Amino acid sequence: MNCFFEPRAIALVGASSDETKLGGIILKNLLQFKGKVYPVNPKYSEIMGLKAYPSAADIPEKCDLAIIMRPAPEVPVVLRGLQGRTGCAVIMSSGFAEIGEDKLQEEVKKISAESGIRILGPNCMGIYNPSQRLDTFFLPHERLKRPKRGNVGIVSQSGAILSCLLGAARTSRTGVSKVVGYGNAMDIDESELYEYLAEDKDTDIVVSYIESVADGRRFLEKAKILSGKKALLILKSGKGESGRAAAFSHTGRLAGRYEVFHSLLRRFNIREAMDFDGLMDAAKALSYQRPGRGNRVCIITNGGGSGVLAADECMRQGLEAATLPGHAKEKLGQVFPHFYGINNPVDLTAQVRDDDYATALEELRDDYDGFLIIALPNVMGITEGLAEKLKASMQSLSKPLVCHIAEGAIAGRLTRLIERARIPVYSSPERAVRALKALLE
Amino acid sequence: MNCFFEPRAIALVGASSDETKLGGIILKNLLQFKGKVYPVNPKYSEIMGLKAYPSAADIPEKCDLAIIMRPAPEVPVVLRGLQGRTGCAVIMSSGFAEIGEDKLQEEVKKISAESGIRILGPNCMGIYNPSQRLDTFFLPHERLKRPKRGNVGIVSQSGAILSCLLGAARTSRTGVSKVVGYGNAMDIDESELYEYLAEDKDTDIVVSYIESVADGRRFLEKAKILSGKKALLILKSGKGESGRAAAFSHTGRLAGRYEVFHSLLRRFNIREAMDFDGLMDAAKALSYQRPGRGNRVCIITNGGGSGVLAADECMRQGLEAATLPGHAKEKLGQVFPHFYGINNPVDLTAQVRDDDYATALEELRDDYDGFLIIALPNVMGITEGLAEKLKASMQSLSKPLVCHIAEGAIAGRLTRLIERARIPVYSSPERAVRALKALLE
Repeated sequence: MNCFFEPRAIALVGASSDETKLGGIILKNLLQFKGKVYPVNPKYSEIMGLKAYPSAADIPEKCDLAIIMRPAPEVPVVLRGLQGRTGCAVIMSSGFAEIGEDKLQEEVKKISAESGIRILGPNCMGIYNPSQRLDTFFLPHERLKRPKRGNVGIVSQSGAILSCLLGAARTSRTGVSKVVGYGNAMDIDESELYEYLAEDKDTDIVVSYIESVADGRRFLEKAKILSGKKALLILKSGKGESGRAAAFSHTGRLAGRYEVFHSLLRRFNIREAMDFDGLMDAAKALSYQRPGRGNRVCIITNGGGSGVLAADECMRQGLEAATLPGHAKEKLGQVFPHFYGINNPVDLTAQVRDDDYATALEELRDDYDGFLIIALPNVMGITEGLAEKLKASMQSLSKPLVCHIAEGAIAGRLTRLIERARIPVYSSPERAVRALKALLE
Repeated sequence: MNCFFEPRAIALVGASSDETKLGGIILKNLLQFKGKVYPVNPKYSEIMGLKAYPSAADIPEKCDLAIIMRPAPEVPVVLRGLQGRTGCAVIMSSGFAEIGEDKLQEEVKKISAESGIRILGPNCMGIYNPSQRLDTFFLPHERLKRPKRGNVGIVSQSGAILSCLLGAARTSRTGVSKVVGYGNAMDIDESELYEYLAEDKDTDIVVSYIESVADGRRFLEKAKILSGKKALLILKSGKGESGRAAAFSHTGRLAGRYEVFHSLLRRFNIREAMDFDGLMDAAKALSYQRPGRGNRVCIITNGGGSGVLAADECMRQGLEAATLPGHAKEKLGQVFPHFYGINNPVDLTAQVRDDDYATALEELRDDYDGFLIIALPNVMGITEGLAEKLKASMQSLSKPLVCHIAEGAIAGRLTRLIERARIPVYSSPERAVRALKALLE
């Protein structure tokens, strides 16, 4: 798999000089790549400042990786031409099994087996590995800015969802390690990618979007191994149609229903997200913080109603917003104004000061398994200084801590400052609770 | 109620010259008010350019409304002093029943009954009525910008949630008609506010956040009347604790559980939101569009995976992503490239052009009850021109149409343009489906 994620030299078959064409977008993105890039196109001697080659056979060295962006019917010929010239290929072209062209895909599969060339795709987005500045996606940067480098690996069957996940990761300031869109999974599938990411030192969390699984037993085996070492978050789509649902049985690849998939994940303690936002919210939480144990949650808020909504969501998520211990009631009752609510949620009211959060966290840190800070920044007592206070509290806490910041003029800046301290921030009380739940599973 | 929402003259008891104090923030916000404002504070002869009065009795005219922002123990005296000077008062001060000071609240209630002064609050945010530029909230504009004028009324027991709703309304470009935080509901409660808003010509949708209801029978009666005339969206918190849950029975105010509240709303077809985002997403949908009938939904997407996630959510919401009719399969199969997916979801793939959405909508408009447009704007074929196409399609459609735009560099601009055409846009496929569901209830 190293040839896919950390190649030294890449051949791009179907390179174009036209930046609006897919082969041009990919080449432009590959110009940033740390290693060598060889554009293949018989019509040009040079493209985007790189020497171009009429065919892969003309490239002066063997390549670790070939990227194929030619119309589907040409792919078998292209692949045969790569025999002996590369060990790995990403077939980005669509027009195979996904539109009923099974025979064409079978032919490609046969060539792959005969030539020993491992295939990612066809009909896929390929690889993004920021540590190598490797980016095979046919999405222009001016349309989709890439997320920063981080510890989240993304494995997506769908290219569309992959692009959405990248956009959401960037917006939520969640960094990525290795990103791969594997498309039709003709050869390399999610199981093999899980195996690779389980050993990848840059990756702590794996986010996986799945539409169908060919070999259910192998999938479960690799998912179990991966989730034993790292946090694995799965979003399964096609829940409604049994025909599209994953194939599962103990004997191989019988068609199965989503409910079976769901219950197997539960049984093996593999995290499953229920929707797109839930997937990215959990990924962010796990990317920012270490998971903890237990289900006792303390909510500290300056908005009573927001605290109650959070407590409701705790109940739905199986988290317990347990009552405050006696020592804390007494101590906080002494230091806080009499109109503060010394319960769980701790209600610091509209008269809140930044310091109050730190005071409450300090007193309660040993009594709960996880903490939710809610700050409505539309009162003057909440300032950007809250980020420093939370950062300091966080350091002595070493338990999961997440934050909900409501809309307000300073919300954007405050969120960025708090997230710099590795405390994930969410835009609603319920989303914050669901993220905390992901840290306590 | 007109005295609360459309007063001609207002007395502010507890006005301050200090813009960081609550009485100063309120006065500053009242400077924008269309009518007269009389600050009451014995320490000053002038505050913020307005003549100040030592007491309400010194004001040269009767006021329609008094706003009281003095410490709780002083409120009875202040209220007695207002007898004969005003018919309505907002008591913004906290320190009453919500912190166990029931006796003080009872005393205020008694004075209210004796003096005939109707009370909003205590412990409340008061009123925001943009048509009068009336804003009694103690939230500085530099901290919380107010939403624009529109057709959504907001009725919130909690001031904190009210501020969050205002922030979310502004962010989601949802305009408001009348906004009220009613706090402890000592006199005027949600039922009376529903009655008022049912007749208010500026209000088409009412968003209501409820923690507890004193008179369940009356609440249900008024909610039924309101939801018969307008869309009423309720978010009930305190679901977990039966003690906090609303009081419901056919004989008056027995304590009841949330489940009872929930099933009564269902029985009377009153919309209930399940969380904060769900409340605001539905409010936006209903604010932008007319609700429709039926449950057959058509999904048109340029991202296969996003379409499948949307179809999954349709199933969970009881909406049917029914298969395309024969005529549409045939027609669209002729005009679209062979690799487009001519199913439901219609998959326009990464090769999409803006026009394709209009083509599909035109062909399918008579066959479905509602439409979901999904556009991943990270491919070159999606441009800002999509907004014009959708606007034109919308005009001939006259059925609910919502949109999901994924992250991407043009997402922000495209969203604004589409929303200008009164098509609500959401950031995930599932949220868009839930909003469409609100339009088809």
